[in-house]
Amino acid sequence: MLVEQAFLKYLATQQQTLSPDSIGIGDDAAVLSWQADQKLVVCTDLISDETDFHLADVTPQQIGRKALAINLSDIAAMACEPVGALVTLLLPQGETSLDLAKGIYEGAAQLGQTYGCPILGGDTNSWPGKLAVSVTVLGRCPVGTPLLRSGAQPGDAIFVTGTLGGSILGDHISFHPRIREAIRLREICGLTAGMDISDGISIDLPRLCERSGVGAEIDVRLLPISDAARQMSQTTGKPPWWHALNDGEDFELLFTVPAAEADSLQAQWTEATRVTKIGTMQPGTKLYLLDESGQRLPLKPEGFSHK
Amino acid sequence: MLVEQAFLKYLATQQQTLSPDSIGIGDDAAVLSWQADQKLVVCTDLISDETDFHLADVTPQQIGRKALAINLSDIAAMACEPVGALVTLLLPQGETSLDLAKGIYEGAAQLGQTYGCPILGGDTNSWPGKLAVSVTVLGRCPVGTPLLRSGAQPGDAIFVTGTLGGSILGDHISFHPRIREAIRLREICGLTAGMDISDGISIDLPRLCERSGVGAEIDVRLLPISDAARQMSQTTGKPPWWHALNDGEDFELLFTVPAAEADSLQAQWTEATRVTKIGTMQPGTKLYLLDESGQRLPLKPEGFSHK
Repeated sequence: MLVEQAFLKYLATQQQTLSPDSIGIGDDAAVLSWQADQKLVVCTDLISDETDFHLADVTPQQIGRKALAINLSDIAAMACEPVGALVTLLLPQGETSLDLAKGIYEGAAQLGQTYGCPILGGDTNSWPGKLAVSVTVLGRCPVGTPLLRSGAQPGDAIFVTGTLGGSILGDHISFHPRIREAIRLREICGLTAGMDISDGISIDLPRLCERSGVGAEIDVRLLPISDAARQMSQTTGKPPWWHALNDGEDFELLFTVPAAEADSLQAQWTEATRVTKIGTMQPGTKLYLLDESGQRLPLKPEGFSHK
Repeated sequence: MLVEQAFLKYLATQQQTLSPDSIGIGDDAAVLSWQADQKLVVCTDLISDETDFHLADVTPQQIGRKALAINLSDIAAMACEPVGALVTLLLPQGETSLDLAKGIYEGAAQLGQTYGCPILGGDTNSWPGKLAVSVTVLGRCPVGTPLLRSGAQPGDAIFVTGTLGGSILGDHISFHPRIREAIRLREICGLTAGMDISDGISIDLPRLCERSGVGAEIDVRLLPISDAARQMSQTTGKPPWWHALNDGEDFELLFTVPAAEADSLQAQWTEATRVTKIGTMQPGTKLYLLDESGQRLPLKPEGFSHK
């Protein structure tokens, strides 16, 4: 079990900023202080070689970054802020696995530093299989309570952050979790529901609607289309909005606000990441899209589903 | 991604007891209430096919139980109590993987129920590799602060719970995490340091000593020897105490108390799980054992190291 021990020694040399009475790597569990009456939010996501990335095509740092980033995106979806992360590695046996472990840790730790999310611990294992990386992130609400998928009402405006589509061309590795944006949104308007877009709007919006017990109508002409979606469109022959609607791994926020606040949200928004109204929640349970000509069609899930 | 979705549907049918304002499976993250000024402890451990178990030799329920139990043992090592768990599955692709997922979940959920540790969420993935199960457990201190590996002083008595050795004959699958015992110990004496025995005393005690900056002397004649260690001894030809000292996966507690409290601890102890004094912390950094004839020898790590 040399790799595990060597990696623990490496970790012991890594400096991370923890609050004074917290305890990170080295004991049976990590310890964190918690404020009175604060909610704890916790999420976990695993990525594995050949399913979520190809080891030959990415750096270990990119793998570590992505494994943490998808979890930070879940914390952002709750409009919370991260407190710390646990990183669990399943390493392929072999001479390069220590370097692989270090690289993954570096990628995660560097992103974690940017987002105030130190690596508190984890578990390292080598085995005769392929690489998998599992990350758990703990978070809390700076204000209010966690934003849920339930809570959207008919009439609420549907918004997204950023631009959508074509993340496979690169953004799925380098995206920025929308922690700051989510907290800012919470400050300036009454969010009613939210989630992050991991499988594409056409799959994720129905999930939010189901939880909230409402229907929805989105207008494809309003979708904020990424340059990558336009680029994809040239090879696939599908319109750019199709990619914005159906491509997975955008990791942007999908959220709803009361109709009366939609305009003031736009007016008050000063962050670099844009927010765009793409439709309206509807009574009932059905989901529709308005196509390029304004024709109303049922919204069908056509993206790639992770879960 | 049929397995993941079918498993989520199965999970939605499972009833678990959460506190009224907590949120479990179904949103982007789980949400828990936290009391004022309570410490949060969090640990994670992964087990995988062919490394920690052989899929052909155990039931899915046993795998799920063990994956949670080793984490509960870490929570016990901190003298804390569990609050909830996240279960992440890497499932081999194939027709049986949904049944496998359900069985693992059942095994974990059933043990969790016994220990007041509901399954709050997780992540389910199928892939072309073998089975791996990663569990994260959150816990808190019912009283005081988490028990650490550091804190032992020269002169402190070294104790263990239960009996040791030969867990490979079955106990490594069916062991009982010592949550209740750890909390009871905390109530009746001043624990100075503690951890759980995962790799065997000869490997784990040096870890505790290093953290505490002390040496130790244990007397092999005092080791509480399990029936399984005696059984192992008959095939290996090694003395039963050798198995008690070096075999891994006992998942008993190893802890230290001030010398003055050692006798009163024994006197007040009424739990079914025995506690046994096996030695004394020493000045310096060296570790010794007294052998069967009372001869003092250096303690050498001979067990199987996990980490």
